Formats: sequence, C-alpha cells, structure tokens
Amino acid sequence: MSRAHNFGAGPGVLPEPVLAEAQAALWEFDDTGMGLLEISHRAAAFEAVVASAKARLAELMNLGPDQEILFLHGGARTQFFQLPMSLLRGGRAAYLDTGVWTEAAIEEARRFGTVDVVWSSAASGWDAVPRQGAWGPLEEGTKYLYYCANNTVAGTEFDYVPDPGNAWLIADISSNLLSAPIDGRRFDVMFGGIQKNLGPAGVTLVILKRHLLDEMDRELPSMLRYDVHVKHNSLYNTPCTFGIWFVERMTAWLQAQGGLVAVGERNAAKAARVYAAIDASDGFYQGRAQVPSRSRMNVTFSTGSAEGDAAFVAAARDAGLVGLKGHKRLGGLRASLYNALPDASVDALLTFMEDWRRGAGRH
Amino acid sequence: MSRAHNFGAGPGVLPEPVLAEAQAALWEFDDTGMGLLEISHRAAAFEAVVASAKARLAELMNLGPDQEILFLHGGARTQFFQLPMSLLRGGRAAYLDTGVWTEAAIEEARRFGTVDVVWSSAASGWDAVPRQGAWGPLEEGTKYLYYCANNTVAGTEFDYVPDPGNAWLIADISSNLLSAPIDGRRFDVMFGGIQKNLGPAGVTLVILKRHLLDEMDRELPSMLRYDVHVKHNSLYNTPCTFGIWFVERMTAWLQAQGGLVAVGERNAAKAARVYAAIDASDGFYQGRAQVPSRSRMNVTFSTGSAEGDAAFVAAARDAGLVGLKGHKRLGGLRASLYNALPDASVDALLTFMEDWRRGAGRH
Repeated sequence: MSRAHNFGAGPGVLPEPVLAEAQAALWEFDDTGMGLLEISHRAAAFEAVVASAKARLAELMNLGPDQEILFLHGGARTQFFQLPMSLLRGGRAAYLDTGVWTEAAIEEARRFGTVDVVWSSAASGWDAVPRQGAWGPLEEGTKYLYYCANNTVAGTEFDYVPDPGNAWLIADISSNLLSAPIDGRRFDVMFGGIQKNLGPAGVTLVILKRHLLDEMDRELPSMLRYDVHVKHNSLYNTPCTFGIWFVERMTAWLQAQGGLVAVGERNAAKAARVYAAIDASDGFYQGRAQVPSRSRMNVTFSTGSAEGDAAFVAAARDAGLVGLKGHKRLGGLRASLYNALPDASVDALLTFMEDWRRGAGRH
Repeated sequence: MSRAHNFGAGPGVLPEPVLAEAQAALWEFDDTGMGLLEISHRAAAFEAVVASAKARLAELMNLGPDQEILFLHGGARTQFFQLPMSLLRGGRAAYLDTGVWTEAAIEEARRFGTVDVVWSSAASGWDAVPRQGAWGPLEEGTKYLYYCANNTVAGTEFDYVPDPGNAWLIADISSNLLSAPIDGRRFDVMFGGIQKNLGPAGVTLVILKRHLLDEMDRELPSMLRYDVHVKHNSLYNTPCTFGIWFVERMTAWLQAQGGLVAVGERNAAKAARVYAAIDASDGFYQGRAQVPSRSRMNVTFSTGSAEGDAAFVAAARDAGLVGLKGHKRLGGLRASLYNALPDASVDALLTFMEDWRRGAGRH
C-alpha cells in the first residue's frame, strides 16, 4: 500500500530512506551480527553512533566548544521541571507565555522559584508571539528568559531569537529544531523531544553551556543531574538506543539535503504555499495565527465552523491525507510540515484544499 | 550474514519473528498508511496497542484488578529515586543489598528517609541472595521491603518471593521479568527496564497497587507523579511508542510460546545446561555465584584468570558467540540467557566451552 500524506503534529512523518535504513539495522547493525535493538549501549559501535550524532548536531546547529549535547529520557515535559529544579533554586525567571507548552512549563517552574510571566498572548487565544523586546526589561536578578520557539497547538513561531539581556536564554525547540539555520551559540539551554523533526519518540535532546553545570544543585537524584549525564556521555543508564541511532541517521540525512540552509528554504517554501492557499481562498479558509507569528511547522486554520472542519478532516483522510485535525485544546485544522514532509504532500494538500473549496466543502 | 549467538546482558537478543514484524511496522503500521514511528501516540490505533499490552501483561503476570500497569521513561534508575521520593517521605524502608543495582537504589533512597540495609552479600562479592527471612524482623514502621529479583552483574537470583511482613513489597524485576511464572498479586510495586526480556531500551514497566497512589506526594513535578501517569494511561506526554508496541508484540510472542510456564521451563533448562557444563569441567570453569543463588538469566563464571577469560571472550567472538564478557565491576565471564535466546545458542556455547577446555584454552 502506498504511504499516506502525513500531516500529523508529532510523532510525525520521517524520511523514507532513513526508515529503510532502520528496517535493515533492526536485523543487522554495523556488521555486528546483532540487530540495532540487541547491542549494548556500551559497545564501541554504539559509542561511535553517539559521537557521530553529536558531531553532526554541532555542525548543523553551529554549536561552540562550551556546549554539551545530551540525549536524555522523559520528553520535553521532564525538562519543564528538571531545568528550574536544577537552575532556579528559589531565584527568579522570566517566561514568555505563547501557549499550552509554556503554560505547563510555567506551572512546573513555580515549584522552584519566582516566575515572572513577562508577556502572554493567552487573552487572544495565543494567536501570536511577541516582537523582539515587547516584554520590556526583566527584573533585576532574573536568572533566565524562557520561551518556546514554536507552538504546535496555536501554530505560532518566533522568527528571531529573543534577547535575554543579562539573563540566560532557555529555549524549548521541540517542534522546530533543525528546521532552519540556527546560531546555536546564543542559547544557554536548548531542549526538545526529537519526535517531530528528528526521529521517533523516546529521546530528549538537551544542549547546554558548560558554565551552567556549576550553578546546579548537586544534591539532586543522580538521574536529574545534568553533570552526571555529561560525565557519562548520555550513557549513565541505558538510554533509548534506537532513538539516538535515528538522530545520527537523521542528521546525516539533513546534511545530505544540503544542511539547514537548504532545509530551511524548503520548509519556508512549503509553508508559504499553504499560507498562500489560505489567503487566496476568499475567506473560505481562515488562518488562525496573526501573520507575523505564523509557524512554518504547523499551519493552523479553519473553514469557519467545527462541522466544516470535521467534514474537511474526514474527506481528506479518504483522499489519503492524514493528521489534519487540530489539537483538541483549540480545535480547527492543522497541517504540520516537518522536515521529512515531502513537497508532494504539500502538492496533494493544496489540490485537496482547492477541490474542497470549489465543491465538496459547499455541499 | 547469519546472526550471532548473542549472550549480551542487555540490551540483548530479541526474537527474530518479532524483529521481522517490527521491520514491517516501521514502514506501515496497522493499515494506517503511516509507519509505527510516525503515528500519534493519541491515535486510536496506538491506544489499542497500549490496551493490548496491558491485557497481555496482566494475564501473563497474574495481576489483580487493583494493579496499575504503566509504561514510563527514564529506566529503572529513575525508579530508584522516584519510588522513595513518592513513598518514603521521611519514613523508613528496608533494602536487601545483593549488588550494584541495590547499592544504587539505596543511595537514592537515603535522600528521602531512613534506609535499613537489613541484609547484604557485599562482603563476599555479592555471590548470594538471602534465604527467605534471613534478614530478620523489620523495624517497626518500615514502609516497604525492597529487593532486586535478579542481579545481572553478580549472576544471582531470588528463587522465591521475599515475605515483607506488614511492609509493602517493592521489586526491581528489570532482568528477569516475564522469564518464569509469577504471582504478580504479591507485589505492591514491580518495575523494570524492558531491554532484557521484553524489548528495546527506552521503556520502563511499572506495576503498582492502586492503594499506593493515596500515599504519594501530590506536590511533586507532574512527570514524577504516578497518579498523573495512571490518570493519563501512560500517555501524559509522548512516551517511547516504539518500545510500547514492542512490549505488546513480545507479550503476544510469549503467549504463543505457551505462556510463562512453558517459557520458564525452557529458561530453567537453558541455564541448567550451562551450569552443568561448568560443574562438569573438572574446575576448568568456575561458577561465580553460590549454587542456591545461581541466576537463570545471567550465568557468571570464569576460567580462573583475567587473561584466560579475555582469551575465551576473543575466541568465542571469532566463533560467532558475542557478549560473553563479564560486567566491568566484577570481571569474569557472563552468559545471559534471556527469553529470546534460542536453544541453538546454548548448544553453540556448550560446544565452544567444551572445545576450548579441551584445546585452545590450554594453549
């Protein structure tokens, strides 16, 4: 059977060449006589995978020598508490609230110190991210400025890196990591689940500057100590080896695509085509996010009614386009356009949207 | 290339039919037009996987209706702290120390209350587990008795369930889960990484009695709250979906093997053959664990010298037998005989051991 056009918000579509490599590796990994799932995480062949994944990430993201790359457990949600537990320690932090993911992060951070929500689009249904500096000067002594680079639910995205002033900068990059060029050196901490642009669910990428290790509580349980994971090169306990292998192959695939400049151009073009179709629909389709805040990763839109949206989703599914239902929190429609989504899927979506507008959608 | 005989201690050998199913599912899962890694964890098709995995586990392990099954993140090491953090709360617990894994669990538990190490084989190099009750009566008010059912490093295993008296019983079953019949109802908490007998690395199985949820700290970060994961059916955040799928297929495979009675008999027979070869070697091979404590999962032995062991490992590898090196902490040799290790691999090991003893090992 031919594969569907997968617009799911994550876990989402992955590149077919990497999936084919994974199929082969499950049976036989690197001429070891063992499958990828069956080798020790301490085997030299697997340590080589970790080293290669780190080297490729450092190259793609322009990381500096003072930045540590970790492959951890527990998803971005574990970082929501682990970072403030380690770093806040009764101090003060500033959060930019752009949706459900920052809401959840704020709730966890409040356990460990004072949280200033210095900007929020909650009142307008999280339809925007702030412009640079719109949050005003941070309180004296603020340890870090926290933001979520792309909001999958609202379909908003920062198209710039917030300036944290003298504070550290922490970014949740779960849903747009490695989707465009990035000056990684500007971030004190970046983290994200890999299950959107970089692999299957089960690995959390954390990139942090080494100076932060000195600021952290050493009395925490060992699994919650970043310095322990750094010391053990993400092999303190058995990690999700399959997911780490996938990161290595995905970063190789991204490099083969021409690196993040080329990937970013293609992602921007994919999103621009879908937004153009929305904007040219004479109001039949309505974009959800304010134009300057539109996400390249998750295009949120609507036909204007819950019934119309449900009919669209069902007909699209019948036409082989899956994952177009919006997040339950905000409803509507959503087309996620991650790295691995082919241009052909965007072609299919635009054709379907146009056909639906002209015909079935009016029935 | 033919696959090696894989005696690795974990991640370890998996059944070839399940690996073949996984290969197919990576491309196309359940006629969805999407691969297993590319579907939402909230899709109905995936919720069915979770439900089936839980039902098969409950059947295989004889669980009661008051027991909750969770698929969590972070490995057994996360349970080392998460359980006492949730349950101990300044109280008292008793630990049976049978090796490196209980050592680590004790260290984490001490952060959260008083830990009585009521029995230990550390002085004799962890060559044994206690006989039933050898630890004497527990202190008044002891909340739980904790033990590790099988020690992969030392090659020791409990062949009975410790009686905790009035305390709760907590068992780390990482390395022998689902390897023999079990009366699951006797355990207040069982937990284990799945990467030995039940799938790839990345999922932690936790089975706990519902009454414990009322005893737990509700002020912890949400990812550390068992009640949150119970409420959300292990889908509070994106779990390692691939690993959970694998548990479902592995439990189906175990049922197709005849269930845990048949699997347990086969595992016992595999181990008995290797121990018999050691015991019949006129002292050329020496078993590490005391006989009554010998593990069916991890046979630890030695040729009597580090050089001899290293030569054995190298020659075995050349003969297609991999993963026979002992854990770095204790050295020696180790043959892990998990559920998926075929009889043919035991045949190959016995042939190699005999040949080595008669010839090459004497060179």
